[in-house]
Amino acid sequence: MHILVTNDDGVFAPGLLALVHAMQKIAEKVSVLAPDHNWSASGHVKTLHRPLRVKEVVLEDNTRAWASDGAPSDCVALALLGFLEDKIDMVVSGINPNANIGHDVTYSGTVTAAMEAAIWGIPGVAVSVDKPENLSGVVDYKPAAEAARRVVEWLRGQNGLPESVVLNVNVPYGPLVKMKGFKITRQGMRIYNDVLVRRVDPRGKPYYWIGGDVPSGVDEPGTDFGTLSAGYVSITPLELDLTNQAMANWMNERGFEQDLSS
Amino acid sequence: MHILVTNDDGVFAPGLLALVHAMQKIAEKVSVLAPDHNWSASGHVKTLHRPLRVKEVVLEDNTRAWASDGAPSDCVALALLGFLEDKIDMVVSGINPNANIGHDVTYSGTVTAAMEAAIWGIPGVAVSVDKPENLSGVVDYKPAAEAARRVVEWLRGQNGLPESVVLNVNVPYGPLVKMKGFKITRQGMRIYNDVLVRRVDPRGKPYYWIGGDVPSGVDEPGTDFGTLSAGYVSITPLELDLTNQAMANWMNERGFEQDLSS
Repeated sequence: MHILVTNDDGVFAPGLLALVHAMQKIAEKVSVLAPDHNWSASGHVKTLHRPLRVKEVVLEDNTRAWASDGAPSDCVALALLGFLEDKIDMVVSGINPNANIGHDVTYSGTVTAAMEAAIWGIPGVAVSVDKPENLSGVVDYKPAAEAARRVVEWLRGQNGLPESVVLNVNVPYGPLVKMKGFKITRQGMRIYNDVLVRRVDPRGKPYYWIGGDVPSGVDEPGTDFGTLSAGYVSITPLELDLTNQAMANWMNERGFEQDLSS
Repeated sequence: MHILVTNDDGVFAPGLLALVHAMQKIAEKVSVLAPDHNWSASGHVKTLHRPLRVKEVVLEDNTRAWASDGAPSDCVALALLGFLEDKIDMVVSGINPNANIGHDVTYSGTVTAAMEAAIWGIPGVAVSVDKPENLSGVVDYKPAAEAARRVVEWLRGQNGLPESVVLNVNVPYGPLVKMKGFKITRQGMRIYNDVLVRRVDPRGKPYYWIGGDVPSGVDEPGTDFGTLSAGYVSITPLELDLTNQAMANWMNERGFEQDLSS
């Protein structure tokens, strides 16, 4: 198995290195192609208006890696379009130092990198750890990396994977023995606490921050947020077909097509 | 009704102005807050790492508008967080000069602006026109703007809209009388024809374009691509909950939770 590891925090982020080490335990080959800077909340990007640069870098443990000035999804596209010569069997993205749950998924560079893989027909796994906001000191990514290893190893053991696999893995912070288990979940509801902060620059001109408290969520059982809060590793399978059938039915019942064609 | 119009091609794009004119026919108030430059294929963005600037501009017909250096979804967030004082009832985004169908939806600035509206509880409508690739001369956005007007007017006439409304409207290019009608569709399959183009700069260093032919799609009845190809206006309701229940069932049947917890 040849795994591509990428992330949205940049190639030198410690979460990426922990993930690389975990994947090296189970894959014949691990390649790294990740952004050369932080792309958090950058969404699903395909850079067509400018060329992309890729340079070779050396990570802290002397692992050789590729760094690109594109977004996480660009890194995946570059690799799968042939920048990496060997066939890639899976893309694993992370480890993001904050949970990616609820509506975060379409903003998240970590998750959209996994989505990009699935668009190209390759399983994609996004890994995030729910680091406490007030944590001081070094983040320990090892337990989350170990949780990711178990998920990827399980996937590898399955024959005939579905065509489109995107798994959004969120791991509670702390030692693996304290985690209650692994749960398949559905996407929950984020509550964003954004506020608009207006400031004035030294030249008298206004500028605006999207500020406010960190997002919370609706604590419902079975959801990513609720399951993670309860101490489990949350695995949400995600879909690339966003069709809202309930809304389609609602419109049909109200005669949308007839009303507009008459 | 107070409509916010935005887009991903930039505030001075002619597709935006055509949309503004169509919305002015049916809304009490139309506000414009759009990016100051092109953000195509930029995805769903929330800019938190830098402040945003907003400046007042005047469009070709003397309409006053706001231009921001943020992404389309940032423009929607800014407006809804209070940059625009009056309550906004609907966000309409476009008109994009190329169709946004199949997997395009998560990359598309036009569509993710509508998704951002729905995250804040406001109906969002994305409008794109399927301009032929070989079209020379000025693009006529009026028929697509008129199609968008009909969709928005219909929505306004409904009591008790569902909580999350994201409509992805794709309009065939050409006069409205030639369109066969309006169809509610499901998201189809895009076929991307991307290829990696490697070049060498004047200083001998390589750079990479994501190049290749424009995307095509799988021509299936009932899908956005198939319906648009058949000459209809395609309206796909989109969902913010990306949970893939089929994949969840597949994993449950194969004992995922037991395997990983043991």
